[in-house]
Amino acid sequence: MLSRLSCLAATAAALLLSTAGVLAQTTPLAPREVPAKTIPVPTTVSPELQQIIAQPLRSGWNTPPTTAEGWKQLAETIRAGAAPNVEAMRERLKVRVEPGMMAGVKIYTVTPEKILPENRNRMLVQIHGGCYVLNPAEAALPEAMLIAAIGGYRVIAVDYRMPPEAYFPAALDDSMAVYKEVIAKTDPKRVGLIGTSAGGALVLEMGLRAKQLGLPMPGGIASGTPMSDSTKSGDTFYTNAMLDNVLVSTEGFCDAAAAFYANGHDMKDPLISPVYGDMSGFPPTILTSGTRDLLLSNTVRVHRKLRNLGIDSFLQVYEGQSHAQYGRDDRIPEVREAFTEIAYFLNKHLKK
Amino acid sequence: MLSRLSCLAATAAALLLSTAGVLAQTTPLAPREVPAKTIPVPTTVSPELQQIIAQPLRSGWNTPPTTAEGWKQLAETIRAGAAPNVEAMRERLKVRVEPGMMAGVKIYTVTPEKILPENRNRMLVQIHGGCYVLNPAEAALPEAMLIAAIGGYRVIAVDYRMPPEAYFPAALDDSMAVYKEVIAKTDPKRVGLIGTSAGGALVLEMGLRAKQLGLPMPGGIASGTPMSDSTKSGDTFYTNAMLDNVLVSTEGFCDAAAAFYANGHDMKDPLISPVYGDMSGFPPTILTSGTRDLLLSNTVRVHRKLRNLGIDSFLQVYEGQSHAQYGRDDRIPEVREAFTEIAYFLNKHLKK
Repeated sequence: MLSRLSCLAATAAALLLSTAGVLAQTTPLAPREVPAKTIPVPTTVSPELQQIIAQPLRSGWNTPPTTAEGWKQLAETIRAGAAPNVEAMRERLKVRVEPGMMAGVKIYTVTPEKILPENRNRMLVQIHGGCYVLNPAEAALPEAMLIAAIGGYRVIAVDYRMPPEAYFPAALDDSMAVYKEVIAKTDPKRVGLIGTSAGGALVLEMGLRAKQLGLPMPGGIASGTPMSDSTKSGDTFYTNAMLDNVLVSTEGFCDAAAAFYANGHDMKDPLISPVYGDMSGFPPTILTSGTRDLLLSNTVRVHRKLRNLGIDSFLQVYEGQSHAQYGRDDRIPEVREAFTEIAYFLNKHLKK
Repeated sequence: MLSRLSCLAATAAALLLSTAGVLAQTTPLAPREVPAKTIPVPTTVSPELQQIIAQPLRSGWNTPPTTAEGWKQLAETIRAGAAPNVEAMRERLKVRVEPGMMAGVKIYTVTPEKILPENRNRMLVQIHGGCYVLNPAEAALPEAMLIAAIGGYRVIAVDYRMPPEAYFPAALDDSMAVYKEVIAKTDPKRVGLIGTSAGGALVLEMGLRAKQLGLPMPGGIASGTPMSDSTKSGDTFYTNAMLDNVLVSTEGFCDAAAAFYANGHDMKDPLISPVYGDMSGFPPTILTSGTRDLLLSNTVRVHRKLRNLGIDSFLQVYEGQSHAQYGRDDRIPEVREAFTEIAYFLNKHLKK
């Protein structure tokens, strides 16, 4: 018993405070060996979310397309599969969706049943996710519809060009073209950007690009679980691997898609991995993630980076959620909660 | 190739939006089977923090004392081991530490070299961690010294009674006794509470208890990785098990210590598991955790609970950190960063 105690006590004391001894160490740092685990569905979330958490790993996660035609076909299959769900969500949320063009880019104008009085002169620009390659056309709409309905905002959803039609930086160029046209008519301080995953990265890349181009910043940014680092650096890429049932692993389809988009371009370019960019001058930014999210590190690293620059930035992390599940379905209480928080943040920071 | 694609596409479409099918399901929800993993030390944190992350699991984590005498001996051994490190930290941080008594409770008054002008009429009350059983006397001091030095605050550190001398609710009673005496002399809106782990739970329990007693709320709370749920509910108790090198697992010493403190009392009592309490009326609260923290879920659940009550609450989560490593050592850049953020939050919300 005594030896056990001494052992625990000695380790505890060593762990408690002192790094003096180890700081001088120069040998390679040992990885953590974590044994196989059986992880129950948490009871600390809504029944609706429990069902989402209980879904198995996305099948086919590690067999992405290997040809341009394969990616195109996958995007089209996903779009077609999503279409009825998008329409059902549109009906439930009572939003109007009108396709159109702006600055030569395909867009949707999403209008809620009731625009909040304080939002009458405001506009959101929404940039969809899908690893830069997936979710064209109406598959781009769920997030725009959620923030329109829950926040009482008018939203322009950008259906940017994607590979194999157009590679990096086409998605960013199209998003910027729309942004420029929007801020020509609306005070940039009344404009908010919102996006998730690749869209969460793109709204950060738009801030970086606006600085390069000498354009004014928007009044606020909502970046959900951004693909802020496409170089596979970040702790939860490993700690949440095989746990996140959406992205599953950096060995999966999403990193393959990002590489397909980059088309040989340096993945560490801040316009692909914005965590490496200079975010000084950014407007207030809200970040959203989940405890099982493969991109939780990507998210908190951006949060800390912004805070260390003194930027008003707010982090919300949801219990048990894998990548982007906070925007999965309007019937999940935690989804309404997340978008209520985003709407509150934008409402607080966008100019009236 | 086509079957692979169809498979990925079909799953993606199903995952994208629709819960309609699964919501009707009534069979038990399947757990996630996660294979064994080798997890590297992240390169996305400071070299100093990398050393802390690389430390092996706390040895003896799963062989806690089984007798009252054993716990007492362990607490004393840890205290003795920590003492030189605490003194070294005190010297580096240039704070003055004076032991004393307040309302019959042992305390330390911690004074920084320079009290910030806006903090002249303010006071922090710090409640130490250690699973309700560990870190007596000077082992209680690191957090108080960090916030005193980095925030320019005067701090009263409470050295509350612990088992086997006194069981639940002695720790809370002692903390409340000090709080009552402090707010008799200082406007409660100028008083902040700060604590980590069991201390992070205790500062939340103090808010709940103040409501029961009809006492005024403090002006702000800093709750670090709180033991807000001692019923073993919460997703990261499982997802971060054997990854967090401080607490390691709910099968470890900390849950055993909490049970020793509870002494047969219901672990779901909000005065032991404050996440189950009614936090309406709470003051602005900052919460801190890490991506490897066994108590990340405990932390984000409190954050969401507060936000859903409309309370100004701020969450910071640090890349790669296990439980309470944000307060480990003042020489780690991320430790200074975390306490700078806490000081900023309290400064913003406490009455001047």
